Amino acid sequence: MKATKRSMDVSYAIRDILLPARELEKQGHNIVKLHIGDPNKWDFETPKHVRDALCQAVESNDNGYAESEGCYELRHAILAKEKRKNNVSADIDDCLITCGVTEAIQTISAAVINPGDEVLLPSPGYPTYSEFTKFFDGVTVSYKTDESNDWQPDIDDMRSKITSKTKYIAVINPNNPTGSLYSDKVLKDIIDLAGEHDLFVISDEIYDLMTFDGEHRSMASLSKDVPVVLFNGFSKVDLLPGWRLGYVIFNDPLGKMDEIKEGMMRQLRLRISANNPCQTAAIAALEGPRDHLEATNRKLRERRDYMVKRINDIPGLSTATPRGAFYIFPKIESDYWKTDNDFVMDILKNAHVLLVPGSGFCSEIDSKHFRAVFLPPIDTLATAFDSIENYMRKVI
Amino acid sequence: MKATKRSMDVSYAIRDILLPARELEKQGHNIVKLHIGDPNKWDFETPKHVRDALCQAVESNDNGYAESEGCYELRHAILAKEKRKNNVSADIDDCLITCGVTEAIQTISAAVINPGDEVLLPSPGYPTYSEFTKFFDGVTVSYKTDESNDWQPDIDDMRSKITSKTKYIAVINPNNPTGSLYSDKVLKDIIDLAGEHDLFVISDEIYDLMTFDGEHRSMASLSKDVPVVLFNGFSKVDLLPGWRLGYVIFNDPLGKMDEIKEGMMRQLRLRISANNPCQTAAIAALEGPRDHLEATNRKLRERRDYMVKRINDIPGLSTATPRGAFYIFPKIESDYWKTDNDFVMDILKNAHVLLVPGSGFCSEIDSKHFRAVFLPPIDTLATAFDSIENYMRKVI
Repeated sequence: MKATKRSMDVSYAIRDILLPARELEKQGHNIVKLHIGDPNKWDFETPKHVRDALCQAVESNDNGYAESEGCYELRHAILAKEKRKNNVSADIDDCLITCGVTEAIQTISAAVINPGDEVLLPSPGYPTYSEFTKFFDGVTVSYKTDESNDWQPDIDDMRSKITSKTKYIAVINPNNPTGSLYSDKVLKDIIDLAGEHDLFVISDEIYDLMTFDGEHRSMASLSKDVPVVLFNGFSKVDLLPGWRLGYVIFNDPLGKMDEIKEGMMRQLRLRISANNPCQTAAIAALEGPRDHLEATNRKLRERRDYMVKRINDIPGLSTATPRGAFYIFPKIESDYWKTDNDFVMDILKNAHVLLVPGSGFCSEIDSKHFRAVFLPPIDTLATAFDSIENYMRKVI
Repeated sequence: MKATKRSMDVSYAIRDILLPARELEKQGHNIVKLHIGDPNKWDFETPKHVRDALCQAVESNDNGYAESEGCYELRHAILAKEKRKNNVSADIDDCLITCGVTEAIQTISAAVINPGDEVLLPSPGYPTYSEFTKFFDGVTVSYKTDESNDWQPDIDDMRSKITSKTKYIAVINPNNPTGSLYSDKVLKDIIDLAGEHDLFVISDEIYDLMTFDGEHRSMASLSKDVPVVLFNGFSKVDLLPGWRLGYVIFNDPLGKMDEIKEGMMRQLRLRISANNPCQTAAIAALEGPRDHLEATNRKLRERRDYMVKRINDIPGLSTATPRGAFYIFPKIESDYWKTDNDFVMDILKNAHVLLVPGSGFCSEIDSKHFRAVFLPPIDTLATAFDSIENYMRKVI
């Protein structure tokens, strides 16, 4: 009995790489896992008032299905947050709750991609966009982001790649995996470009409140009537990735995307609802103090600074400085390794540190990088990079 | 900007029907909602030790991602339950946790259906199977279940519909929407038929512990080496549908479905994980007393008995007696209404009771039925059926 090509072709480097690491763990090795963007695996925890709100929801029997489009009060609180932060006004019907941003990517891909349609995605970028594009028989067209310019998008490259088959431009800001924070000018240029070609923009802002140098600007606040679909969620900023809770806001004053929104809604009705008590608790996350963010971002900045220094001190590696999120995307400059996969597997086996091959974030594999998280405490990062440095100095 | 045919073609009658009901509510009408299988909307609640286990998981920072295939301890507890109840042995790697049975249906459909492939589904049956078949360009072929024989599957009809394009046979037992509980003979005959044609069986057993007359038998316990993929979950039996937690077990001793399992796993890795703290709490559901079931089933049986009598006393309606789950699927015998949709909309507008058109559960619309839940207390059911009866006696 055979599986479909569709299902066998998708991959997710961030999880796939875990399989060889588990083998080493079975043999008794201790692996420092820098592969996954899960703050709760380290010294971060969900704010107490948010945890308490979940318990209260569960104890008061808030355990039935929610509305398919998401709990009304939560959508109301989300719109209030976006108004406060970004001065963006959207209607309650323009806001949908999803099982993480993943479900938003999946359902919008299914709603817009016909076979052969193209989508413009950043390279490097979060792989789920390109995987669901492929899953629905579409074609990923990558636009360059420039490592020598802090990984800012290359607008000329983007322009040159728009065709009659292009459906949307996705922007991930702060970026996963580079940690780049985009300038207002770049964001405005992308909106203008989308407007010229009657495209919509997906603006993935899941790390919006996790920045270290400079503030995040929402694309929705910069667009007049070019449709900007905002993707965001609670996983990262509120330190509860295991709750699987994201949201979508259609900033589309002319209603150009109404049919696409309906195509997403039909899929959301089919899956009945997202987790209900977690939705109730997320209201507390938005309406509560959110003062954990200062300490969170202070810790992350220290760890980033440490990691940038360590990496740039190792011969054969170099890195730009991430300004948001909690990822770093260094370059493997040594020729000792032919591919990023070779490097990552070698580091896993010999230094017992789990990284993700950069090619897992790039549709066009043209350079050697890896992704790591700077979530662990500095002593853990020190152990990991001592081990990487010792091994690299030995072999090259 | 257009949506794909794929996304605009899916529908889910159980949720779609809510939209006109909301309009009536806006006008101030009180609607008795018998459309959705959500016990927690009525006088049923998640067992206390399970709610407490969720709170404990959340308070102990169990809020990061889980393993993509599901939490190991939960899968272990699931296998122990299936061993206890059904004397079925499966390996831990054969058990996967999904976001409700919905995600199991979605990912297996994507993993096995190529364009034009056929699947054999019960009519009437749970619509998510046929919707995801269509979504992935497959063709639903319905096999008859016989209303005059308590809605048991018609094996001859099933046999006559197998072609070289058939991928699997799905069995929903106890059945949604008919409440039918299948005999051992029927189940064995289906397994034999699948074996003859080298097909696998999906056995959806989500209502396995909710039976009133007779016990549920798992198909996995009746098969020697024909692959039986068991779908089950916690939503119904443990009264927590809003947690969105299901599971899959591949009972496939010859490993025929290994590639299909991998095709599902690839999709599960891409969506990272199901809700993590709810998985921890589900362990308590399986290992705890589960003694709420006796009271739950006693209430359901009383309500079923009441509803069967009321329906059979109304001229123009008749029904078989459900023996499991909490749905009833009566026949609209009166010719006053041309279609089941006409009937349901008329009852909604005039009797203010929300039912689901039977055609939402049948790919071949050949008879007039509706689905209702017998979850509400008897006084609520009395109000609803007084209203339906008064209206029907007035017009026919």
